[in-house]
Amino acid sequence: MTSHIDALADATPEAGRLGFDRVVFFSDAVFAIAITLLVVDLRLPELVSDTEQALTDALWAARWEVFAYALSVLVIGSFWLAHWRRYHHIVRVDRRHAFLNLLLLGAVAFIPFPTSVLGAAGDPPVAVAFYAVSVALAGLLGELVTVDAWRRGLFAPGVTAQDARAWAIRGLIVPVVMLASLLLLPFVGSTLIELTWVVAALVGGALPRRRS
Amino acid sequence: MTSHIDALADATPEAGRLGFDRVVFFSDAVFAIAITLLVVDLRLPELVSDTEQALTDALWAARWEVFAYALSVLVIGSFWLAHWRRYHHIVRVDRRHAFLNLLLLGAVAFIPFPTSVLGAAGDPPVAVAFYAVSVALAGLLGELVTVDAWRRGLFAPGVTAQDARAWAIRGLIVPVVMLASLLLLPFVGSTLIELTWVVAALVGGALPRRRS
Amino acid sequence: MTSHIDALADATPEAGRLGFDRVVFFSDAVFAIAITLLVVDLRLPELVSDTEQALTDALWAARWEVFAYALSVLVIGSFWLAHWRRYHHIVRVDRRHAFLNLLLLGAVAFIPFPTSVLGAAGDPPVAVAFYAVSVALAGLLGELVTVDAWRRGLFAPGVTAQDARAWAIRGLIVPVVMLASLLLLPFVGSTLIELTWVVAALVGGALPRRRS
Amino acid sequence: MTSHIDALADATPEAGRLGFDRVVFFSDAVFAIAITLLVVDLRLPELVSDTEQALTDALWAARWEVFAYALSVLVIGSFWLAHWRRYHHIVRVDRRHAFLNLLLLGAVAFIPFPTSVLGAAGDPPVAVAFYAVSVALAGLLGELVTVDAWRRGLFAPGVTAQDARAWAIRGLIVPVVMLASLLLLPFVGSTLIELTWVVAALVGGALPRRRS
Repeated sequence: MTSHIDALADATPEAGRLGFDRVVFFSDAVFAIAITLLVVDLRLPELVSDTEQALTDALWAARWEVFAYALSVLVIGSFWLAHWRRYHHIVRVDRRHAFLNLLLLGAVAFIPFPTSVLGAAGDPPVAVAFYAVSVALAGLLGELVTVDAWRRGLFAPGVTAQDARAWAIRGLIVPVVMLASLLLLPFVGSTLIELTWVVAALVGGALPRRRS
Repeated sequence: MTSHIDALADATPEAGRLGFDRVVFFSDAVFAIAITLLVVDLRLPELVSDTEQALTDALWAARWEVFAYALSVLVIGSFWLAHWRRYHHIVRVDRRHAFLNLLLLGAVAFIPFPTSVLGAAGDPPVAVAFYAVSVALAGLLGELVTVDAWRRGLFAPGVTAQDARAWAIRGLIVPVVMLASLLLLPFVGSTLIELTWVVAALVGGALPRRRS
Repeated sequence: MTSHIDALADATPEAGRLGFDRVVFFSDAVFAIAITLLVVDLRLPELVSDTEQALTDALWAARWEVFAYALSVLVIGSFWLAHWRRYHHIVRVDRRHAFLNLLLLGAVAFIPFPTSVLGAAGDPPVAVAFYAVSVALAGLLGELVTVDAWRRGLFAPGVTAQDARAWAIRGLIVPVVMLASLLLLPFVGSTLIELTWVVAALVGGALPRRRS
Repeated sequence: MTSHIDALADATPEAGRLGFDRVVFFSDAVFAIAITLLVVDLRLPELVSDTEQALTDALWAARWEVFAYALSVLVIGSFWLAHWRRYHHIVRVDRRHAFLNLLLLGAVAFIPFPTSVLGAAGDPPVAVAFYAVSVALAGLLGELVTVDAWRRGLFAPGVTAQDARAWAIRGLIVPVVMLASLLLLPFVGSTLIELTWVVAALVGGALPRRRS
């Protein structure tokens, strides 16, 4: 799979190191921008008048957008933490890995759009479903990156098949919860569903892992 | 608290180094974007006519937004300087530290929203209070990161309890001034309060520290 | 061409290393932001009513913008992958190289604009042509960077003229396809043309290279 | 001027290295975002109709905004190149240097605002003057950073006073041209003035320096 050129890159450790670092820091930049861009969609509605009360009302009306902001900081943050952990153990990258990682980044960079839909529209089922599917897609692409890296031996020698399996299962938490919540959508309120998302983001990415 | 996996990461210094650098540079990226995004909210109001005078008026009308921009560059800049200084002395990070740092970054990335409210609305008390609370929240999360890192031994061996206490006190300057200024809000003008913020940002983050 | 100052820089390997890393990571940041900014143009049209159906219709109406987003993630991503590969083999940079690279970055950072035109307007020939020319320009500037670097000996010693020629040809795939597709514009539908772009981006940047 | 804490940082070369790298890469991130954000202001005016001709007219009407975009890529790019060169020779940083650099970054991040004014308004004298003053401010802050760093011995030992003087003079080219062009504003057309800016950006930052 590695070409003459890639072999050449492998021959100079400095180049290999740079290639690895670039994949990692490029990813960091995309995650950082995706988190920060969320705030661009936080905008006050046009004030109907210039009074203090009108501003207070407008700020209060923005509470759903602020909630959507906080939710997506948590979701993208948990993806970043998963990415951060992944490269504790992946020790080399190649072209195909960089490409799959790019697809993941494209899905992460997309999340501000469903976030703005959720924030603007309150939480009708369509907005909830659109958000859930978008986040699940990013989660599944992260899973693909991990599994593909494991299959092609990009992990450190000390990582066991058992470790890899544990990560793969853990990486499924966010997408599975997201998609499962869609099944509940006709029966329970949107607010309850969004609460399960917060829990899923915390468990799947943010909370400390139990010792295995 | 550290899992089998984290222990493994600790075993390979290269991975530990990368994990540390990523937390730091990811933070830098979020700070950099938060500062730069502030300018997105600087927009001219619709010109009422196409004349030179109309443009001059519009630019003059934007002076509050430019002030809000400069204030937030100083505030976010002082948080970045505090972050920069913190990692002169923190020598290792773990999952929980990365998560708390993420919450801090989420609060910093939020600041452009209250900034745009302050800029758009001039400075009615509600806008001033919203800004003060948002900045104080970021300051308090920074404090949490510092104290938690100290408690769990992430600082360099040479750092004394006295140093840590001095930092903790210093880190409280911005949030305390911000919250205290709210008490003055009914009595003094918004402009005076915003002036104390500029001073607080300079003292709390930007000005050289006195020798202890 | 190198001045006294540049010679001085060459004399301190640390400074040379930093200068090299900065060009690379500055480029990564621009690519990352260009990819992430694409989503800013994904906005729902004003909802005509507050019903569930209105939101569904608005999301469905945004499908072209989502397609344009995905296309540009692929296009900018393939430019990034080409950039990433290039610096596996370029081992030093100078002022002129940094300047040419900057022109390339300016062209890449421009791509969100034709993307938003393509997304907003559906795909009339003018929008398609504007997009194709913009992307071809970025591709040709990338070519210029590569050829100039080769001519002035910035590549690693192990790189042969044959390698350089192979890269130069490969780098022409995206611009040639883009410009050639314009010739077809009067005859075939826009959709078919955009499909060839997806293929060109995959072949020119994303897919694994055949062994030479 | 250096406190106990800074002294401590100096004592651990690793921390000093990190502090230096963060100042540099944080700056790179701000420059990269400022360049990339310029494109956010490139937006098509509302189309008056859905015809091909309406889109062509709208694109043609955006030509001034595209010119303003290209001008600012060149201007911010030349500031970045100057920054890049500066840290070939600066070998250590401290708190005050980081703070002054932060002011410079705040001025650079501001440039997209006068750029959008220039692009939106065509080039009436007010817009031209606002742009010139904003860019000159960033240039003068860059000068301040250089001179302050020289005075306080942050440059590499090999740098002579003659080198420093040459840089200081060179760094004045952009601000002086910008401010001087304001004097010409009543006499010559805006287009001619903007042309001198392009030349100044190229000479001041982008073109190779003559051997001294």
